[in-house]
Amino acid sequence: MASRRFLGVLAGQDLPPDVLAAWCQSADFLIAADGAANMLIRQDIVPDVVVGDMDSLDPNIRAVLPKIIESEDQLTTDCDKLIAFAVAQGAESLTIAALEGDRFDHVLAATQSALRSPVPLRLVLRHGLGLIVHARQLTKLETNPGQIVSFIAMTECHNVVMTGVRWQPEPTLSPLGATSISNEAEGEEVSIQFTEGAGILIVKRDSTEPIW
Amino acid sequence: MASRRFLGVLAGQDLPPDVLAAWCQSADFLIAADGAANMLIRQDIVPDVVVGDMDSLDPNIRAVLPKIIESEDQLTTDCDKLIAFAVAQGAESLTIAALEGDRFDHVLAATQSALRSPVPLRLVLRHGLGLIVHARQLTKLETNPGQIVSFIAMTECHNVVMTGVRWQPEPTLSPLGATSISNEAEGEEVSIQFTEGAGILIVKRDSTEPIW
Repeated sequence: MASRRFLGVLAGQDLPPDVLAAWCQSADFLIAADGAANMLIRQDIVPDVVVGDMDSLDPNIRAVLPKIIESEDQLTTDCDKLIAFAVAQGAESLTIAALEGDRFDHVLAATQSALRSPVPLRLVLRHGLGLIVHARQLTKLETNPGQIVSFIAMTECHNVVMTGVRWQPEPTLSPLGATSISNEAEGEEVSIQFTEGAGILIVKRDSTEPIW
Repeated sequence: MASRRFLGVLAGQDLPPDVLAAWCQSADFLIAADGAANMLIRQDIVPDVVVGDMDSLDPNIRAVLPKIIESEDQLTTDCDKLIAFAVAQGAESLTIAALEGDRFDHVLAATQSALRSPVPLRLVLRHGLGLIVHARQLTKLETNPGQIVSFIAMTECHNVVMTGVRWQPEPTLSPLGATSISNEAEGEEVSIQFTEGAGILIVKRDSTEPIW
């Protein structure tokens, strides 16, 4: 049996509404982080649950929500709370949409929250998908030849090996050092692995159709 | 004599055009990274120079540009090239606009390029300003009481001390660990220092007026 499709929605403003709606409609379980519920309800999409500290939830919208999990912990982001809730609900993997946009501190903090996920996590981006990749984990991605693939090291990554790409990246990639931006898939699969570190594999995708 | 106001413009789409124009008009020296020149010329703003690998520069726009510095190095980003050029021109500090938007891999890679700047660098964001902060450097920022301030550790930061904020952050902040999001200035100055690491101090600002 395929695992359930868990979709978490953040309050970023930059994902086109029709793309967000398509992802929401194709999910089995929809979790909104705090103010993301405002955005969803205004698009007539009702999340299964809303999690967060509720500091940006519109009171009128609060009244129509089926379930609210309130948490005021100042040390974790709304994205951390959303991930923890999904995992507690049995999510074996998680897809997160609407990370981009709004305040840049939120965008960076949510990206770092995604890195801390205990289950495989990917991001629905305006122009593609992002996969969180950790050390000692062989990550494979289906591609079309010529598709643009970037790997951004979010901590120092050692012994990086990519297959199926036009340019082999440097063996050590890091936030302060080398990066691997706008590489190209040569065939139908790209893989990446490394022995230490964490990062995000981002694949550019023109189609906005959800894929699970 | 105050140092010259160097402004670098990237090709991100998310900074409102009027805000971008105001910053460009108040700069002494305006450098566009590659495709950012398309965006500027379409707004009738002529940069002093365009740097980058020119893979996204519109040929019609190329014809009207005063000066182009072409560099095809695949190992550095357009943002790296822009910073290196500004420093070679004598920039003692650099302000970068239009980092947000477009492709998320570009946004993250440009953020990491900003971290590598050999001169003090700040980012003009949709909702404020971002200051790159390195270890062993006391960074001060003028604030209004209540102003929202976040510090995002981009590498592991040790012995972090902030003054002038409502909540003292954890002493160690890192991309995979604790963060300091949505803190609040208590008075007219916030400072931050740490002994190892690098990060971005982001201050929310409602005014879109340039400040240098």
